[in-house]
Amino acid sequence: MPSEPAADTRLRHLLSLDGLGAARITQLLDAAEALRGEALGGAGLRRVLAGRTVCNLFFEASTRTRSSFQLAAQRLGADVLNFDVAASSLSKGESALDTLRSLQAMGVEAFVVRHAEDGAVAALAAAAEPGTALLNAGDGRSNHPTQGLLDLLTIRQHKGGDFSRLAVLIVGDVRHSRVARSALHGLRQLGCRDIRVCAPVGLMPDAAELAGCSHGTALDAMLEGVDVLMALRLQRERMEEGRVPSAAAYFNDYGLDERRLALARPGAIVLHPGPMNRGVEIASAVADGPQSAVLDQVANGVAVRMAVLRHLLGA
Amino acid sequence: MPSEPAADTRLRHLLSLDGLGAARITQLLDAAEALRGEALGGAGLRRVLAGRTVCNLFFEASTRTRSSFQLAAQRLGADVLNFDVAASSLSKGESALDTLRSLQAMGVEAFVVRHAEDGAVAALAAAAEPGTALLNAGDGRSNHPTQGLLDLLTIRQHKGGDFSRLAVLIVGDVRHSRVARSALHGLRQLGCRDIRVCAPVGLMPDAAELAGCSHGTALDAMLEGVDVLMALRLQRERMEEGRVPSAAAYFNDYGLDERRLALARPGAIVLHPGPMNRGVEIASAVADGPQSAVLDQVANGVAVRMAVLRHLLGA
Amino acid sequence: MPSEPAADTRLRHLLSLDGLGAARITQLLDAAEALRGEALGGAGLRRVLAGRTVCNLFFEASTRTRSSFQLAAQRLGADVLNFDVAASSLSKGESALDTLRSLQAMGVEAFVVRHAEDGAVAALAAAAEPGTALLNAGDGRSNHPTQGLLDLLTIRQHKGGDFSRLAVLIVGDVRHSRVARSALHGLRQLGCRDIRVCAPVGLMPDAAELAGCSHGTALDAMLEGVDVLMALRLQRERMEEGRVPSAAAYFNDYGLDERRLALARPGAIVLHPGPMNRGVEIASAVADGPQSAVLDQVANGVAVRMAVLRHLLGA
Repeated sequence: MPSEPAADTRLRHLLSLDGLGAARITQLLDAAEALRGEALGGAGLRRVLAGRTVCNLFFEASTRTRSSFQLAAQRLGADVLNFDVAASSLSKGESALDTLRSLQAMGVEAFVVRHAEDGAVAALAAAAEPGTALLNAGDGRSNHPTQGLLDLLTIRQHKGGDFSRLAVLIVGDVRHSRVARSALHGLRQLGCRDIRVCAPVGLMPDAAELAGCSHGTALDAMLEGVDVLMALRLQRERMEEGRVPSAAAYFNDYGLDERRLALARPGAIVLHPGPMNRGVEIASAVADGPQSAVLDQVANGVAVRMAVLRHLLGA
Repeated sequence: MPSEPAADTRLRHLLSLDGLGAARITQLLDAAEALRGEALGGAGLRRVLAGRTVCNLFFEASTRTRSSFQLAAQRLGADVLNFDVAASSLSKGESALDTLRSLQAMGVEAFVVRHAEDGAVAALAAAAEPGTALLNAGDGRSNHPTQGLLDLLTIRQHKGGDFSRLAVLIVGDVRHSRVARSALHGLRQLGCRDIRVCAPVGLMPDAAELAGCSHGTALDAMLEGVDVLMALRLQRERMEEGRVPSAAAYFNDYGLDERRLALARPGAIVLHPGPMNRGVEIASAVADGPQSAVLDQVANGVAVRMAVLRHLLGA
Repeated sequence: MPSEPAADTRLRHLLSLDGLGAARITQLLDAAEALRGEALGGAGLRRVLAGRTVCNLFFEASTRTRSSFQLAAQRLGADVLNFDVAASSLSKGESALDTLRSLQAMGVEAFVVRHAEDGAVAALAAAAEPGTALLNAGDGRSNHPTQGLLDLLTIRQHKGGDFSRLAVLIVGDVRHSRVARSALHGLRQLGCRDIRVCAPVGLMPDAAELAGCSHGTALDAMLEGVDVLMALRLQRERMEEGRVPSAAAYFNDYGLDERRLALARPGAIVLHPGPMNRGVEIASAVADGPQSAVLDQVANGVAVRMAVLRHLLGA
């Protein structure tokens, strides 16, 4: 784990929550919280990044996440360039770094980068010109730091800021999930001591990644006293790989339904990063029920991204 | 037909012209007319929707219509998010309603929605959160209300506001046309008493839809005294289905050429929703001739969409 | 060659550098030079094209070039509409001219047009409505005038404005290159007297196009005294056509590496229009070395496009 930089300096990039430090994470959550009221409209923030250019450089398609970043940048007044690499020169053989450098030469100051390979965003950041900020919007199975921040913000809004008193259960395909890894990074640093990981054997991460967590394969037994249930998206290819027998069997064993929610602590909240497979990871009665915080997560996502962009661009 | 709401209340959604009422339709046409001068440039309207977000949520691709809505929203100062569902999470199994709710949580206040299925936009509107406006940009064969409004505005500009004195002929694939249905809704409510529908047998709507219209399959005989000729786009798949023998045969029987235009009332105007198949529905001499109002329709489209967005968002 | 219009009138379109005249070219380069400081941010220019609409109408995909034009237009305050024809009505049979006319009716005043066919942009310009400006962003093998201008600007910044004293070598697939043709147009008019063209036999243009140039197939022998080396992109299909035996053989014969760069005049600069095939046209040591001006070209591209858009729209 890298040493924690002091929270009174500015981050150049946001690549991971790992090693960021509780002070820095809390600083970004506080900034996002303050922005929430303005994140859904209002002209007051338009001057913050006026005349600056933010590029959504997506090597892996994601319309939802890109939209959240686009709205965050626009509401701060930035020019936004959506650069879809599938349609670009990369298919003509240009390297990712040459694409980045060209866009930097055009005046792009911040890049929101998504990439299917672990570590690809960090590698680009290491090679980027000074004055260029990279924001990891998801790399492989490794990191999705703004998703981690929005999950933490949502938990804090509903359950208060003392994470040491909370029990959080992450259920599903933890092995392949950058959402889960960023949540683990954040929860540990904010002092959460009761983190539980529940997954089928084939979707459980390696033991080294579970340090300090309890874990198991039987969901019902792990729900007692849980304050936060975090469901993960199940990729269909996991069934093709034989890691999950079927959607129905998965729902039977790991789906969040009303019966299971009743086994958690009263008032527990339910998180899901979206898009949801209803009837696979989550029942509609839970997704749309009073304990669901799924839409709060989405709203918080815009505010978190505004806070991070403003921080990185130093405005 | 639903009861007509009073025109002094604000519409929440615009899903259909059916049942909207003459007063409301006229109100929107008047607003669009007043906007036309500013619709092609000018900074005066930029504050109307400043800080508001409009999303083009297209479940069916249409670059032209989307562009018209995008320009309308931009010229009112809104942030515009183009959300192409074909490239989005829906291909990962998310429901249309979850996509809508997520975007609403991101702060989108108005959705311009196109969908291939009849009634899909109305179903989304019925389930949308309070404070969210839906604007139907075309659903199945059923409705395309802003197309109907721009057609009415174009007719009014050229022929005056007394629709009871006008004869309007709609020719082509009326059966599958949401453009025709919205035109019929609007013309009837504005008092047009001489509506004629001409189509090959396989492209004629059911009799119940033709109440109050004259109809037939022989075009030449129906042209006398016509003030407005509205041609419709012929989908190529109609030939594959055997409903139309060939493009050449269709043009011979139903194409608008100079000879046929001369059979209508002198000064009659020609409408087409675009994109035009020249030599199929319309001859170039007519499309580009002095009686063509096709480009007026396009220009009016931006103004109509500005008027509707401003109305729905209550600015 | 058309007669040169006086530089004190305004151009309506920018279709080619051919016949533009040294005075006009210099005027546009001076304007771009003055814009460079502001081209990478700053709010001062936002009013120049406020309320005006620029459309990137690309009949041939190019994310990089489109991005450069988009940023140029945005930084002048214009509304930008990206219209990707592959996804549009043209696939439904509409003509390119009808698309242009419809967009013009929506209020688009300037079109940035790329097309795979020689002369297609000029043909559209000839048919466009008065008041509409077309900017050729590349047509077939013929013209790419803003690329030519950015190459000239980059040369001038590094080597001064007296082109009569410079030796410029263009190497690679000159036969199929609109980049090379626009460079030749510009260099000749600015008085460059030592233009050298080096290409394999199958990629050499016809003799008539080489009037006033020296040319040959052996690169090393042509490098002495060269101030500017311009490498061109090699399309992979040239290998499939048998015009080039392999990437490795091409690099051996025509690739710019450090040994070859040392044969040119000390301080010579290296240009490449991008995207670069590293190890094919250019070695990484050269692309990233101190004599590379590749990223200067990219930065100058935005400034040149700002200057041209401002000129054509008369702001």
